Amino acid sequence: MTELPAVTFGERRSVEEVEEGTVLAPRFDERGLIACVTTDHASGDVLMLGYMNQQALQLTIQTGEAHYWSRTRQALWHKGAHSGLIHHVREMRIDDDQDTIWLQVSIPLSGASCHVGYHSCFYRRIPLADERRQGEALIYTEKTRRFDPQDVYAGLPNPTLL
Amino acid sequence: MTELPAVTFGERRSVEEVEEGTVLAPRFDERGLIACVTTDHASGDVLMLGYMNQQALQLTIQTGEAHYWSRTRQALWHKGAHSGLIHHVREMRIDDDQDTIWLQVSIPLSGASCHVGYHSCFYRRIPLADERRQGEALIYTEKTRRFDPQDVYAGLPNPTLL
Repeated sequence: MTELPAVTFGERRSVEEVEEGTVLAPRFDERGLIACVTTDHASGDVLMLGYMNQQALQLTIQTGEAHYWSRTRQALWHKGAHSGLIHHVREMRIDDDQDTIWLQVSIPLSGASCHVGYHSCFYRRIPLADERRQGEALIYTEKTRRFDPQDVYAGLPNPTLL
Repeated sequence: MTELPAVTFGERRSVEEVEEGTVLAPRFDERGLIACVTTDHASGDVLMLGYMNQQALQLTIQTGEAHYWSRTRQALWHKGAHSGLIHHVREMRIDDDQDTIWLQVSIPLSGASCHVGYHSCFYRRIPLADERRQGEALIYTEKTRRFDPQDVYAGLPNPTLL
């Protein structure tokens, strides 16, 4: 295996450079994390919002497979290493002030990305304005799970925090 | 004008209820904020990642126009109130653990959403893996601005922090 070239980050010296330059100079927050929006390259759906520390961002750029920082487990998280639901990065972008990443990914096989078993983590919608008067607070947008979490994650803790 | 019905949030009593129920029970972080991914309903592009406090979330649900919390200005932010670039919400979703909102919005006229003048805040991509060896760190994905920020935001402070 060839050595992967190191990923280095530039300094954030001016608003103009950060917004209009071509130097990657990400802003990590007080926890050392940068937010990452992940969308499905095929459907366009938002799959999840994750977070990366410096190492996760570097590994994602180097390997083309999404790495995140699990806030629940406080550990580097190579998405799919356990479940097989790898996020293969098709395109990676950064926003104006370089404090958010956008990954467009392809996902294998079942088309699932969410630990609950759905395609997207966003499987429920919130009715707005006039529609709110008519019924439930949340409405499902996906009818069936793509896999059974009991099979895939047997024995592992659920990442959802109350 | 008719009175808008109040938006109330449920308690987060169990992981099962939060993940599989139909009660809106958002999780605000230690700053009192919930993250919000905003995409263009027409192009599917991610436009921005914003944050909402409780009031911003309630106003968005009530009015169908996106309201955010500006972390730079530490103030409620009715997007477009100054620039005219209102985010009209076409669909609103929440994720599995209810700590992230996804808004699909339509934007008026110029098709711009970003304060730098572009369609999306994500107007630069990061080359991955083998492509990194060939050139620049960041590559522009939008060629021209939709408006001149000097005209639209004259005299206002830039929200980008170093």
